[in-house]
Amino acid sequence: MLKYLCYGRELGSRIQDLISGSGGFMNLVDYAPFLGLGGLIFALLLFYLVKKEPAGNKLMIEISERISEGAMVFLRKEYSILIIFITFVFGFLYLKINPWTAGAFLAGAISSMLAGFLGMEAATKANVRTAEAARSKGQEKALTVSFLGGAVMGMSVASLGLLGVGIFYYFFKEINPAVLTGYAMGASSIALFARVGGGVYTKAADVGADLVGKTEAGIPEDDPRNPAVIADNVGDCVGDTAGMGADIFESYVGSVVAAITIGAATVAGANALSWMSLPLFVVMIGLIASVLGIISIKVFEKISPQAALRYATYVSAAILLLASYFAVKELELPLGIFWALLSGTVVGILVGLITEFYTSGTPIIKIAKASQTGAATNIISGLSVAMESTTLPVLVISIATLVAYRLAGIYGIGISAVGMLATVGITMSVDAYGPIADNAGGISEMAGLGKETRKITDKLDSLGNTTAAIGKGFAIGSAALTALALFSAYTTSVGLNSIDITKASVIVGLFIGGILPFLIASLTMSAVGRAASKMVAEVRRQFKEIKGLMEGKAKPDSARCIEISSVAALKEMVAPGLLAVLSPVIVGFTLGAEALGGLLAGATVTGVLLALMMANGGGAWDNAKKYIEAGNLGGKGSEPHKAAVIGDTVGDPFKDTSGPSMNILIKLMAIVALVLAPLL
Amino acid sequence: MLKYLCYGRELGSRIQDLISGSGGFMNLVDYAPFLGLGGLIFALLLFYLVKKEPAGNKLMIEISERISEGAMVFLRKEYSILIIFITFVFGFLYLKINPWTAGAFLAGAISSMLAGFLGMEAATKANVRTAEAARSKGQEKALTVSFLGGAVMGMSVASLGLLGVGIFYYFFKEINPAVLTGYAMGASSIALFARVGGGVYTKAADVGADLVGKTEAGIPEDDPRNPAVIADNVGDCVGDTAGMGADIFESYVGSVVAAITIGAATVAGANALSWMSLPLFVVMIGLIASVLGIISIKVFEKISPQAALRYATYVSAAILLLASYFAVKELELPLGIFWALLSGTVVGILVGLITEFYTSGTPIIKIAKASQTGAATNIISGLSVAMESTTLPVLVISIATLVAYRLAGIYGIGISAVGMLATVGITMSVDAYGPIADNAGGISEMAGLGKETRKITDKLDSLGNTTAAIGKGFAIGSAALTALALFSAYTTSVGLNSIDITKASVIVGLFIGGILPFLIASLTMSAVGRAASKMVAEVRRQFKEIKGLMEGKAKPDSARCIEISSVAALKEMVAPGLLAVLSPVIVGFTLGAEALGGLLAGATVTGVLLALMMANGGGAWDNAKKYIEAGNLGGKGSEPHKAAVIGDTVGDPFKDTSGPSMNILIKLMAIVALVLAPLL
Repeated sequence: MLKYLCYGRELGSRIQDLISGSGGFMNLVDYAPFLGLGGLIFALLLFYLVKKEPAGNKLMIEISERISEGAMVFLRKEYSILIIFITFVFGFLYLKINPWTAGAFLAGAISSMLAGFLGMEAATKANVRTAEAARSKGQEKALTVSFLGGAVMGMSVASLGLLGVGIFYYFFKEINPAVLTGYAMGASSIALFARVGGGVYTKAADVGADLVGKTEAGIPEDDPRNPAVIADNVGDCVGDTAGMGADIFESYVGSVVAAITIGAATVAGANALSWMSLPLFVVMIGLIASVLGIISIKVFEKISPQAALRYATYVSAAILLLASYFAVKELELPLGIFWALLSGTVVGILVGLITEFYTSGTPIIKIAKASQTGAATNIISGLSVAMESTTLPVLVISIATLVAYRLAGIYGIGISAVGMLATVGITMSVDAYGPIADNAGGISEMAGLGKETRKITDKLDSLGNTTAAIGKGFAIGSAALTALALFSAYTTSVGLNSIDITKASVIVGLFIGGILPFLIASLTMSAVGRAASKMVAEVRRQFKEIKGLMEGKAKPDSARCIEISSVAALKEMVAPGLLAVLSPVIVGFTLGAEALGGLLAGATVTGVLLALMMANGGGAWDNAKKYIEAGNLGGKGSEPHKAAVIGDTVGDPFKDTSGPSMNILIKLMAIVALVLAPLL
Repeated sequence: MLKYLCYGRELGSRIQDLISGSGGFMNLVDYAPFLGLGGLIFALLLFYLVKKEPAGNKLMIEISERISEGAMVFLRKEYSILIIFITFVFGFLYLKINPWTAGAFLAGAISSMLAGFLGMEAATKANVRTAEAARSKGQEKALTVSFLGGAVMGMSVASLGLLGVGIFYYFFKEINPAVLTGYAMGASSIALFARVGGGVYTKAADVGADLVGKTEAGIPEDDPRNPAVIADNVGDCVGDTAGMGADIFESYVGSVVAAITIGAATVAGANALSWMSLPLFVVMIGLIASVLGIISIKVFEKISPQAALRYATYVSAAILLLASYFAVKELELPLGIFWALLSGTVVGILVGLITEFYTSGTPIIKIAKASQTGAATNIISGLSVAMESTTLPVLVISIATLVAYRLAGIYGIGISAVGMLATVGITMSVDAYGPIADNAGGISEMAGLGKETRKITDKLDSLGNTTAAIGKGFAIGSAALTALALFSAYTTSVGLNSIDITKASVIVGLFIGGILPFLIASLTMSAVGRAASKMVAEVRRQFKEIKGLMEGKAKPDSARCIEISSVAALKEMVAPGLLAVLSPVIVGFTLGAEALGGLLAGATVTGVLLALMMANGGGAWDNAKKYIEAGNLGGKGSEPHKAAVIGDTVGDPFKDTSGPSMNILIKLMAIVALVLAPLL
């Protein structure tokens, strides 16, 4: 505890030295890479803290190692495929754009992979230690361990992003700031594959485990006899942790790069550097604020786990806003910029709260009641809720966009996205905590740690579901603002004065952009279907062929299930990935730069709508089922419950595969367009 | 006031001109109203031909009268509510725009209602006569009767449209062609209420009849003991006939008015009249071509019913294209305009064929196979097909838009929509035939006409399902092109040089426009849910309380079911209707004319996508179920069949309520914007 505080103080005094040394507030931004490095060290320190916790008995360690191994096998395979893609794009950028952009692309891709790797390592260490803490030391300790595990991911994302952007900014701010777009594209490319691949992996395993294990064989969730249960736990790591991390890393880097690009393109003269450096200042502040927020958990967890996570986030947000206000003043920028930044922070909170309402408020009771007349009415009612739930978040984003634009022009849109994402160190930590708690529950079940332990992990898990819902809303909101910022950055850097939708080519761009999210949602949904049916067949086979499995005398072949999920995920991520990367290229070179702008706008609109519809719909179906399971409307095993289970299964690929893919899609296409800008 | 008096004087002299007659090809267009009147007389003649066919035995006449009565009761109630809306809008237009536009609005609304009324009258007469023809004279005669019944609707739509547009064009072409937009808005407003109201009506009755009658009570479809069966048949008329008619009437009038408006706004000088009159020429030719097509059925029906409907459509299209070519030449317009027109005709055919593929080709087998693992996989697979099915139609529409624009500018987009819709007299006839054949099947069942008769009506009905699928694709395609044309007309008439999506207000308009189809889809879906659950409760009550009903000794209280569907439909159509009409007004007056343009573009993109997704998805689920019922994968009553029935039930509000509402929504909003243009 004291160690953290001392570290923070030291950093602070060093910064003061630097101000007085180099004379000039603005030059502080040159130290961004060091702050990033410091954050990374902090993340490793957290990792060490997690790792030194006791990991429990032999069985627990064995299970945890199998999960960890499965996750790492998948990551290694995934990365080995991505290397082909990265090499190809690197070559293209090297030859067609410039070597530095190509290098930045490579760095961005590696950073994203590294963040994913660190986050997964930590998550797979923290899960078993959370279970053990719940068993031997109770809820408070279990919360600490799982949260610290999540914080490794959160801090890795924030620090690596700051490190990378900081370095390239330092070297290229005056020569060619467009190089930074390469870094963002690297982050984005990895993100798409990670999200789609991770999403397919986790759902194939989940559906396979549930459909055969729970429904057909009638054994409980997370039962060690179920061959797909390890794959399911691996899926939580690769989908919810690594996938989400890559998603947020992309938004984080994308928003900063967009704001810098807009600043570079729209402001001329000596003043330009102030505009360009503000986004970096804000994320530097955000990193420090996140560290303080993470530390504050220790204080708040005395109240309640829920309060701890919530207040820690608020502490960071308050610090960010206060310090940013002074940064804007110090850089002698118009105060409107601060209000634009504030609007972004507010959007992040509001979209999260709206998401929480639609996935746990009265709408889920409506769906639960509709289950009384069968599965069809459950589905209709769920789709209706899902579609309705798009309205408020989009209105909130729209209002924020208008406010930001009126107060600070296009730059305001960029800075509001940065304002939303700057405290990613803490928001991502809260988010990554959920899957760890979920995993801990699975391990306690498999290792037979008893009811009391399971009760604690269940409580942490259920809190994790709420934070996950809010986190998903946050991810979509940030993706929307980031995509808008990148769209603006594209417009300015390609030198278009307007993108005029009364031109046929632009409206056609808009239409084609509008199709893409529908097409990718379709591809990913059918991918889950295909992968899950293979998993179902395999689990059925094992139950039939492995003698003594049901009696607990023989072990299931978990490795085979992990293999199936891995292969399917890697195969299925290719088509959506290429579609997303190639569409802007094709439209840009055939219909022109303005039509490409139309494509980005169209994809952003339908992408955000589908993302909200699918994430909220999936969450609502899930909780409608849980509402019935809590004893309402007939409870578990009743006809309404059966209908609700069908709704939940439909919602699975919605909320964990297709929906999240939309976030990446809209950002990635905008980034590709931005990188291509010099060629158009 | 003086301005209006001057209009009045001009009007007087025009009437004199028309009577004395003046030479020149272009003046032929002045006779459009007479041609419209002629078409209307032809429609009445067809009506007479239908009516003089024998109506069968006493029971059949009684059933048919109950359906006809139910339909008319609904229409009367609906129209009496619409009068309030019409009065209000009339007053607004009278005071804020000008009295002539208000008058045109009134005329448009009355024309649409009249077309709906005539079509329904004919449909409810033709259904029983088709059943009788199938019983006593065989398939060929049954096809003739049902097709002629549909043709009354087709010709009414085409003729009333030509009559109305022709009259207002004649009087206002040189003074103030914007008056025509009032006529289109009248048509549009009625269409929205008719589509939403009709859609809710038909699905509430359908779900009620199926869920309790077929599933719970285990009696066959269209069994006279089922209290909701008459309401179900009424629903076919008010939803599929009147609703579809109002939809197409709106597209027809909207496309012509858009093309005229673009011509008036973009071409100056004496030549302007050639550009403005071409759309009217094309629909005049289309009307004659449709009459010839309808007559040609008599020749082709010797081959097969399928060939008859298809070839008759092709004959009309060929005549249209040939004669339009000469009209373009004669008016000394650039030949590119003809190719734009051709592109519209081709789009109509292609979108129809793609729809046919997705609702009856390999995709339905994919859904059927997914039903083997349960309802959840059936739904996921269906949604995946539905989303995928948006791609090709939108690409086709995009290519046509590009071609039309390159060849003839914005005007080309308008004229391609006209080219698609000019032969509406025949395409709508083919479309309206389906529900009549469906109804005929119901009547033969209820009246116990025997297996042979039912076989004929089933064959005609199944052909009707295909034409309905193609017709739905056509309706969406035409709505998309018409909306684009209206959007272009709006841009030109509001005097915007560009609609620039790099401006925050425009991108916000785009987002808000994007929400509306999702919100209205949600509203209409939950409306069906609410209405259906009331119907289910009522049918259950009757089966329980009316003694001897199951044994066929007592009659069900059908009137009560009709009442429930009517009240629900009328109540539920209000919110979506007001939302569609008021959104453009609010955005236009708060965010400005350019943002309103963004709203139209956003609504068109997501509206077309959702329309395709919902129509094709619903059709595919329906046919996947039928595929299993045909004996595949276990056939009727098997587990896959049960899963497919759930998918079909989800698809019902998709394809018959929410999906079709999208078509109207996007056109109506564009029309409202166009009418408001002078105020912005």
